[in-house]
Amino acid sequence: MSRIGIFDSGVGGLTVQRAILEALPSVDTVYLGDTARVPYGTKSADTVTQYSLRNARVLARHGIDLLVVACNTASAVALPALRAELAVPVLGVVEPGARAAARASRGGRIGVIGTQGTISSGAYQAALRAARPDAEVVARACPLFVPLAEEGWTDPDDPVVRGAVARYLAPLHDARIDTLVLGCTHYPLLRAAIARELPEVALVDSADAIAAEVRARIGEENGREGAHAFLVTDTPERFLAVAGLFLGRTVTSAEHVDV
Amino acid sequence: MSRIGIFDSGVGGLTVQRAILEALPSVDTVYLGDTARVPYGTKSADTVTQYSLRNARVLARHGIDLLVVACNTASAVALPALRAELAVPVLGVVEPGARAAARASRGGRIGVIGTQGTISSGAYQAALRAARPDAEVVARACPLFVPLAEEGWTDPDDPVVRGAVARYLAPLHDARIDTLVLGCTHYPLLRAAIARELPEVALVDSADAIAAEVRARIGEENGREGAHAFLVTDTPERFLAVAGLFLGRTVTSAEHVDV
Repeated sequence: MSRIGIFDSGVGGLTVQRAILEALPSVDTVYLGDTARVPYGTKSADTVTQYSLRNARVLARHGIDLLVVACNTASAVALPALRAELAVPVLGVVEPGARAAARASRGGRIGVIGTQGTISSGAYQAALRAARPDAEVVARACPLFVPLAEEGWTDPDDPVVRGAVARYLAPLHDARIDTLVLGCTHYPLLRAAIARELPEVALVDSADAIAAEVRARIGEENGREGAHAFLVTDTPERFLAVAGLFLGRTVTSAEHVDV
Repeated sequence: MSRIGIFDSGVGGLTVQRAILEALPSVDTVYLGDTARVPYGTKSADTVTQYSLRNARVLARHGIDLLVVACNTASAVALPALRAELAVPVLGVVEPGARAAARASRGGRIGVIGTQGTISSGAYQAALRAARPDAEVVARACPLFVPLAEEGWTDPDDPVVRGAVARYLAPLHDARIDTLVLGCTHYPLLRAAIARELPEVALVDSADAIAAEVRARIGEENGREGAHAFLVTDTPERFLAVAGLFLGRTVTSAEHVDV
């Protein structure tokens, strides 16, 4: 049975794990949430790369066959360093998400939203242009979306949510994009509010895209339900309080690790 | 000439440094912003205490005479550990802020707002009751205020700002507080929006309160303008981009340190 290591800056990557488990219910997983250093999206590429390497070293000691970088910001800046150091394959969410958007787009007018770090890196923009050279790409950082999602303020009728979503998405609306990549693990929680602001636009979730890629690599594995372990760098209580919401199944224990 | 060490989770503590320099223009300062691990307000007391100790050790090597903990969350949870380890006096912002609020309050109905970590710790609530045993204290965490301030969304006429402020402050309004402690370094940036929501309420900024306490300890020092050094744990660029806004004077260089 394959064992997949997954890391993220915090709990958001559990939405990626959820998509992977829907595609491959029998794989084993070890998830590391760097909850003591979250968020990554506001920090420099150097710092995010150092944190990513430390996370990957912990997961490598758990005998993983494949490493999935669930965090968009880490995927955008740290893949070369991770691939140089690790003996197992390393997959990030940026390229699968960009390829899915390139396929989904009718007219090639593609938007991408993410953290400051993800958007500043230009990684999605480059991956979209590589996957579809005729694409017109409009990128926008939406720093308030993560705190809104973590606060549970996601109702499309909430005037605070509506106001923030409208303000960030205005340039994408004006550019008449036909497809939008939700380039952060938290953004699917705001999908309804985003869809209301951009009703004609196809929304692409990188979690689904990477799950399809993991399935293509590992292949279907029949057998028992997979076993899942959770590691966190801050104390486990807050992680456990919200993990079920992101993963869509109960998480009863998580181990504290120093990285 | 005295040299004061100041640390904060990021740039917010520069508002505390600003208040100290207004009170004592000739002291030397060394400021450490833990920008690689910011924010502290969402993390556990254990993790915030560990980070605070590491910050303090770096500052102790700079020959400081006094340590000011500018971060409300660190002040709320880490003072005992810092005082046990450091050879110099350690001042936090919670007790001076609570005493200033206790003095300012006419009727003893005192509110306090801060991060999740600050409010959960109960430190302000305890300090307010110690300073004024008859006080009725209402506390509320406002997780969106820091990202709003960092995004520059602080205009009281902005519907997103108005909506978020009204929602968080509703229980304080209903409790008819007469005084409110702004228990986070970022919240003074939202002072106008908070004042519009609670027009009859006295707003207390802990930065002013601790500046008065530092001045009482060190006394007036005549002489040249003080010298100021800045240390950050993430790369300096983003810190330098916004430091001037928080400090009210130009910051031209900051040194990266590993803690």
